[in-house]
Amino acid sequence: MRAAVIDGKAVAAELRANVRAEAQKLSELGWSPRLVSVSVGETAAAELYVRNQQKQAESAGVQFEARNYPAETSLEQLIGILQGLNHDPRVNGIIIQRPLPEHIPVKSLQKAVHPLKDVEGMHPASIGNIVYNDLALGPCTAVAAVEILKTLPLQMEGLNVTVIGHSEIVGKPIAFLMMGLGATVTVCHHMTRSVAMHSRAADAVFVAVGKPGLVTGDMIKPGAAVIDIGINRVETPDGPRTVGDADFESCAEVAGWITPVPGGVGPVTVATLMKNAVLATRMQMDHYRDSYARTDV
Amino acid sequence: MRAAVIDGKAVAAELRANVRAEAQKLSELGWSPRLVSVSVGETAAAELYVRNQQKQAESAGVQFEARNYPAETSLEQLIGILQGLNHDPRVNGIIIQRPLPEHIPVKSLQKAVHPLKDVEGMHPASIGNIVYNDLALGPCTAVAAVEILKTLPLQMEGLNVTVIGHSEIVGKPIAFLMMGLGATVTVCHHMTRSVAMHSRAADAVFVAVGKPGLVTGDMIKPGAAVIDIGINRVETPDGPRTVGDADFESCAEVAGWITPVPGGVGPVTVATLMKNAVLATRMQMDHYRDSYARTDV
Repeated sequence: MRAAVIDGKAVAAELRANVRAEAQKLSELGWSPRLVSVSVGETAAAELYVRNQQKQAESAGVQFEARNYPAETSLEQLIGILQGLNHDPRVNGIIIQRPLPEHIPVKSLQKAVHPLKDVEGMHPASIGNIVYNDLALGPCTAVAAVEILKTLPLQMEGLNVTVIGHSEIVGKPIAFLMMGLGATVTVCHHMTRSVAMHSRAADAVFVAVGKPGLVTGDMIKPGAAVIDIGINRVETPDGPRTVGDADFESCAEVAGWITPVPGGVGPVTVATLMKNAVLATRMQMDHYRDSYARTDV
Repeated sequence: MRAAVIDGKAVAAELRANVRAEAQKLSELGWSPRLVSVSVGETAAAELYVRNQQKQAESAGVQFEARNYPAETSLEQLIGILQGLNHDPRVNGIIIQRPLPEHIPVKSLQKAVHPLKDVEGMHPASIGNIVYNDLALGPCTAVAAVEILKTLPLQMEGLNVTVIGHSEIVGKPIAFLMMGLGATVTVCHHMTRSVAMHSRAADAVFVAVGKPGLVTGDMIKPGAAVIDIGINRVETPDGPRTVGDADFESCAEVAGWITPVPGGVGPVTVATLMKNAVLATRMQMDHYRDSYARTDV
């Protein structure tokens, strides 16, 4: 193996330390960051995830409240609840846990979160602001993947980047974020004629598809960075395992750097949610101050 | 010359005919589409452009009102005016003419236009909705360029597309729109190491940079489509001329199709503004109907 394995937990720990310092500063100004997690119905699938968020929030100095509503709550009621949270000065960020019951379209809830409280970066306006290259709240997984790449000794301007997967919440935002940093970006997906042609030309490859073993070492340029965003449960002779979209062994032979799964992008994603929480709180503080800046009302 | 020259005026005329039919249908339902153009201060630079929009609107069955405000109007006043237009049921679309006086940041005005009346497709939420692949109001130039490509006998799924230029209102939206159609998209810009490497591999090249002669025939794959979005005034021995970003003669020797400048993307852009006007009107009609769908209020 020649690739350096990127330690996502170390990147996350450093990010959390910065968040904690920022949360402390905000608290001293009367703006203690606080997240509310909203889940609906049966929570077993999300529970582990929510508990992990709660633990990470505490370690980052961010308050965290988990709320659960009954499965039969209507869309209108949930939108009303979100509007209440939007109006509540004690709530700085809203997380909508998935999965949701079938009668609740996730996009309708995401759009109902005020863009200034959209710590998951899922509101269309949040996505649009990323395109406009305004520093706003970005989708956590995409931001985390880019943050990891930025820790490497690579010049982002002019870097040839290939993104495999063009989902709205991961692949596309990674593409804009990297464009914003000056990279030349190609986005591939299931309709691409030859993914290997594009990935082999890239200095950095992001893969976010959800197919174990999709990217193999022969698709990677020697010395390139491989950022693996896939999280797949597979059965092995030794029992179930979690793996990414890259074939770790063959990619690590060729790449210069590679993220492991688990322990790569995952931990940084949760830390990014906390970073968004302090960003959102600061934006709300600025917004509040602006509205009181004029005294001749 | 081997390339077929794409007739933008013909594409625009067909688009306008569809818009006219749609405007007629909407009028019969009490929703006659109407645009308001807002310009501020000295209008000489924009006047020709506004007059052309007015003429095209009339020919597409869309009402058009040009308003001009004095150069000394403040940002707050202009935002107030836009809020008034947002609330006015007789206004279905708002166009903000550029250039604006220096004290007026164009983005602040664009954000003040309600997304449902944003016929220029410039609001962050409009851009975000394109990323989400929702059929919404897209930036006219980008939509026009993609509409032109769609008239060619090319399969969009899997098409290798290179976009040169990564502006928020042209290059990036073209990239998302083409991704939405299933193309594999690479975005190049001034920091790209070798634009030619990427453009030569492409079945279709969009160029929107504002540099005459930037793309030459040796940068184009034989038979590819060249969609030229640049509009540049250049001095020639025969007087001033308007040219695009592609060197027309050398590109036309190699390409399969090419848009001329003028007479290519330009006319389709204005027709797209009218298409957005009827789209916006239909969205407002649906929104109005939805809000009256429940009678148990």
